[in-house]
Amino acid sequence: MTGRITDVPGVRVGHRTLMHGDICTGVTAILPHGGDVFRERPIAASYVLNGFGKSVGLMQLDELGQIETPILLTNTLSVGNCANALIRRTIAQNPGIGRQLATVNPVVAECNDGYLNDIQAMAVTEADAFAALDVASIDFASGAVGAGAGMSCFGFKGGIGTASAKLVLDGTPFRLGVLALCNFGRPGDLRLPGGGRAPSPAVSAPEQGSVIVVVATDVPLEHRQLARVIRRGGVGIARAGSSWGHGSGDVFIGFSTANRTSLAPSSDLLPIQVLAEPRIDWLFEAMADATEAAVLDALTAAETTTGRAGHVRQSLRSAGEES
Amino acid sequence: MTGRITDVPGVRVGHRTLMHGDICTGVTAILPHGGDVFRERPIAASYVLNGFGKSVGLMQLDELGQIETPILLTNTLSVGNCANALIRRTIAQNPGIGRQLATVNPVVAECNDGYLNDIQAMAVTEADAFAALDVASIDFASGAVGAGAGMSCFGFKGGIGTASAKLVLDGTPFRLGVLALCNFGRPGDLRLPGGGRAPSPAVSAPEQGSVIVVVATDVPLEHRQLARVIRRGGVGIARAGSSWGHGSGDVFIGFSTANRTSLAPSSDLLPIQVLAEPRIDWLFEAMADATEAAVLDALTAAETTTGRAGHVRQSLRSAGEES
Amino acid sequence: MTGRITDVPGVRVGHRTLMHGDICTGVTAILPHGGDVFRERPIAASYVLNGFGKSVGLMQLDELGQIETPILLTNTLSVGNCANALIRRTIAQNPGIGRQLATVNPVVAECNDGYLNDIQAMAVTEADAFAALDVASIDFASGAVGAGAGMSCFGFKGGIGTASAKLVLDGTPFRLGVLALCNFGRPGDLRLPGGGRAPSPAVSAPEQGSVIVVVATDVPLEHRQLARVIRRGGVGIARAGSSWGHGSGDVFIGFSTANRTSLAPSSDLLPIQVLAEPRIDWLFEAMADATEAAVLDALTAAETTTGRAGHVRQSLRSAGEES
Amino acid sequence: MTGRITDVPGVRVGHRTLMHGDICTGVTAILPHGGDVFRERPIAASYVLNGFGKSVGLMQLDELGQIETPILLTNTLSVGNCANALIRRTIAQNPGIGRQLATVNPVVAECNDGYLNDIQAMAVTEADAFAALDVASIDFASGAVGAGAGMSCFGFKGGIGTASAKLVLDGTPFRLGVLALCNFGRPGDLRLPGGGRAPSPAVSAPEQGSVIVVVATDVPLEHRQLARVIRRGGVGIARAGSSWGHGSGDVFIGFSTANRTSLAPSSDLLPIQVLAEPRIDWLFEAMADATEAAVLDALTAAETTTGRAGHVRQSLRSAGEES
Repeated sequence: MTGRITDVPGVRVGHRTLMHGDICTGVTAILPHGGDVFRERPIAASYVLNGFGKSVGLMQLDELGQIETPILLTNTLSVGNCANALIRRTIAQNPGIGRQLATVNPVVAECNDGYLNDIQAMAVTEADAFAALDVASIDFASGAVGAGAGMSCFGFKGGIGTASAKLVLDGTPFRLGVLALCNFGRPGDLRLPGGGRAPSPAVSAPEQGSVIVVVATDVPLEHRQLARVIRRGGVGIARAGSSWGHGSGDVFIGFSTANRTSLAPSSDLLPIQVLAEPRIDWLFEAMADATEAAVLDALTAAETTTGRAGHVRQSLRSAGEES
Repeated sequence: MTGRITDVPGVRVGHRTLMHGDICTGVTAILPHGGDVFRERPIAASYVLNGFGKSVGLMQLDELGQIETPILLTNTLSVGNCANALIRRTIAQNPGIGRQLATVNPVVAECNDGYLNDIQAMAVTEADAFAALDVASIDFASGAVGAGAGMSCFGFKGGIGTASAKLVLDGTPFRLGVLALCNFGRPGDLRLPGGGRAPSPAVSAPEQGSVIVVVATDVPLEHRQLARVIRRGGVGIARAGSSWGHGSGDVFIGFSTANRTSLAPSSDLLPIQVLAEPRIDWLFEAMADATEAAVLDALTAAETTTGRAGHVRQSLRSAGEES
Repeated sequence: MTGRITDVPGVRVGHRTLMHGDICTGVTAILPHGGDVFRERPIAASYVLNGFGKSVGLMQLDELGQIETPILLTNTLSVGNCANALIRRTIAQNPGIGRQLATVNPVVAECNDGYLNDIQAMAVTEADAFAALDVASIDFASGAVGAGAGMSCFGFKGGIGTASAKLVLDGTPFRLGVLALCNFGRPGDLRLPGGGRAPSPAVSAPEQGSVIVVVATDVPLEHRQLARVIRRGGVGIARAGSSWGHGSGDVFIGFSTANRTSLAPSSDLLPIQVLAEPRIDWLFEAMADATEAAVLDALTAAETTTGRAGHVRQSLRSAGEES
Repeated sequence: MTGRITDVPGVRVGHRTLMHGDICTGVTAILPHGGDVFRERPIAASYVLNGFGKSVGLMQLDELGQIETPILLTNTLSVGNCANALIRRTIAQNPGIGRQLATVNPVVAECNDGYLNDIQAMAVTEADAFAALDVASIDFASGAVGAGAGMSCFGFKGGIGTASAKLVLDGTPFRLGVLALCNFGRPGDLRLPGGGRAPSPAVSAPEQGSVIVVVATDVPLEHRQLARVIRRGGVGIARAGSSWGHGSGDVFIGFSTANRTSLAPSSDLLPIQVLAEPRIDWLFEAMADATEAAVLDALTAAETTTGRAGHVRQSLRSAGEES
């Protein structure tokens, strides 16, 4: 499986990478559509596979079944700055926020890149977040970029991976795309698709990472259906070799670009489309496969990286060449 | 507030009451519409306020967001027989069940009427459940009838209560109706609407009851919205004086007759209507008020009842006359 | 990994198998300890991976964090009879139930064996359930026995599988044991440990099964910890090749024999032991591995079976010999 | 009921109030004990009654059943700065965070004070959060102080309220204390205890507020029990007159000072005490009553306040004197 999350029409991704001295981190922005997300809110859902994480915005996302900002990914201790950036950007576009309008619910998810990055520096600024939002486009890199700059995965260099799947419903083609921030997996546990053996990394450590999987689709789903679909990200993570470790914040966030909630609906009742439930297995398979493929994409694309205090994470590719 | 759950078009209710010797119990059936519920499934949701109860069918109801049988209410130890009755009735109407078709998910909820009823007798039979289903109509009694025959509430005779609220959406009238099986509330804790003092019952006991609230509406809601609405049943129960006691299985089950899932959908994508979320406060108020009103209806309608071993539960009305 | 759930001291398992004509089903009982479970209740938790199922008793199990009966496994439409059997057996041992004592919460889980079994016959009686309870012992069979008699798995004959893992905590050995009722997996999706290819079954069908995983441990865990551990059963199921299909009721039920709640506690505050949370990864690994091993045990042990209407499910072993 | 959350031994509360020009806001800190909370973590739980809110830290709090920082309350758009403050303060005390140690999970909850406060200014700084932490003591004010400076409640001036309840378990006295940040309730809906009529506020508006209830107790509870107890805060809120409005983020966060998790446990298995479950009704009543009393305390203590753009919220007291 190839493809990327931006195969879903309207979705764009932007990175801001910070690499200097002991700083090896960044921020990645996922924009669900080209308009003002605060005014046209995609139906959304989250699923927490293991809650050892510090994501913000999920409580309201699930209560209302919608997102109202782009999604930012970053390191664990930079969540506050990224949330502030989303708030300020949304206020700039909607000056009535917190006055005539309700407040805004920023969505930020994170992994801990403390091995390669001086995470205590809280180096990602609001300006960095704005930069990631501003460069978002259909084309974007996988690997050690953006929020993935300092991440590790199964003892190798991790980072950003992506994949997408095609489906046909009622004769029309649809897409489900995945972007994974891969910072999980105990060294030695990696399983390649088809059962092939992965090379062994030089390091050993408990699973302490985290993985964030952002899921976009243009299939019209309601909140409950979306929650069922994204849960199958756990299948992909398990197939890759993880047992969903204690210290790993494993979080899935999904949205459907097909169903949107207007900030100011013009009628009391609104038409939406939903999936005929028996067809949902096609999306379950797509979600499991795309998640597994996105993890492999991250591992394949990420280059060997030297970060804080001279710490090195070898790329999977170079490990394969050595062995 | 007056009205009843059957003010929602298509909803019917039937009771089967068993009163002989130490048997003081029964079964109440709520039918969401006049057709085959297994083939045309209303969108549904449940909410568990306190899970000290033995309801069946809620896991699948919430996974799929639909009900596929009528709802039966009965005493705690008769849940098995009532579930069997729903299975047998649905198979009779759909002979492919468990063969060409999936199995069926019966929904049964219960309260413990052991003070007035010899609950160990498991007296409600499949035939009794069929009888309740068969007599279902728009007109039905409140009070010590059907599943409510042996129930107690705040130390008084409890049972079945009902109420409904009207709403107008996009110029069209809609209804939210509630049927409550009231077997909860510590003696002395009852609060009357408007703050009036209830008469004191002669008994004292910890809250060990349970309350089941079935909610019907013709407002088109999706599963998530319905779950939000029925949760406000907790407001009605609290206003009536309960603190949602440890031993009380407090369960709310709701369905929308406006959105139905077909057993065999003819297309992959299906149109439904949903409520514009900001309007949901109207339904929250309706749910809180109708639940409180249904509890009062049960207490007002229930007559003093003598049951197992000569145990007596006085009616609220007679207690008021004495004091 | 070998071993069985009864390696956890005190746990016993009993089968009652029904094989005659179109009847190909049964019931399996798991007893958590040798005493009266209603009076000495193990701490328990459940986790629903996919809620397309009809288990009973889970709502109260999770509210109170305990089980109060043995666990019965059976076919989908026999849940009512098995629940009734647990109620009657518990009343026989505790005549105050529903009078001086609260009622009892039976725990029954199920899979749909409708391909090999005339499930509409609801053939499992209360007497069959008593028989399974009565023969429970440390030694029990895997494969096409008890509740597993008519089950299918990845297109092969499925059924009962078991495995257990050892752990050492504070210098003392402990066990985590798993019993899986395997009726899940799309034909062709089976993955063998180590990446080996499974033979292809002759059939094709959507995943419609279900899998129930019962987990026993003598590690002292609190409810929340137990819920975290059993959730990793999803890893084992995914590794075996499932994407947790839409139509599959995938349910995990766990208990700790080390922490018990007395029906009549003699003091207000009670001492228990819990696991130091950072050690929980050992149990996560054990749970994932034991679940995967139990699925393979079921597939390995189950013999080719002919059931309803001459339907045949080939054993994995015979399929391997042919290919 | 009187008393305050600091009646629970070890608990301290500090306010930092910002009142100048259009700024009418602040921050309130609740410290669960006098030590380093990151190293000695109280067992904790949260319950979301209505998730229209932007609290941070709850996902991990419930996964691990513990808190590892003090709790900060503030306005909706200042959550990021307060989270950053907790991170920086915890790093200062534990320099290994994000290196040898895991990261830290800050817990911050919020309400929207946009009517009286220029919330877009994001006026609460990290220095303000430090100030609130530094002045924490047993004595603290209720009313329009700290995070309560700009809050509204049932159309009156809202803010901080507190109450506590006494219990005796095994002959020893215990406490459950509540601190509520009250910014909820539709004008006209306030219900006084005993059924008395509240004066009518001059304003009318939909319920858009939010209420955060922090619960402390020295009763030894496990996570599940604590979650059950704090849920009954919904009873107190309902009794006060709320229907848990759509736009209100109603969140309860509780901790037990009696059971603590060490950052570096010295053994694999740890002894804790838990409550005998049948006694939990005493805590349910305490929680419902203390929450209702804390709301009344906030309304009684809060003075008439003039804020942003000359907006005024009248105190309940002055409204009562007028009418």
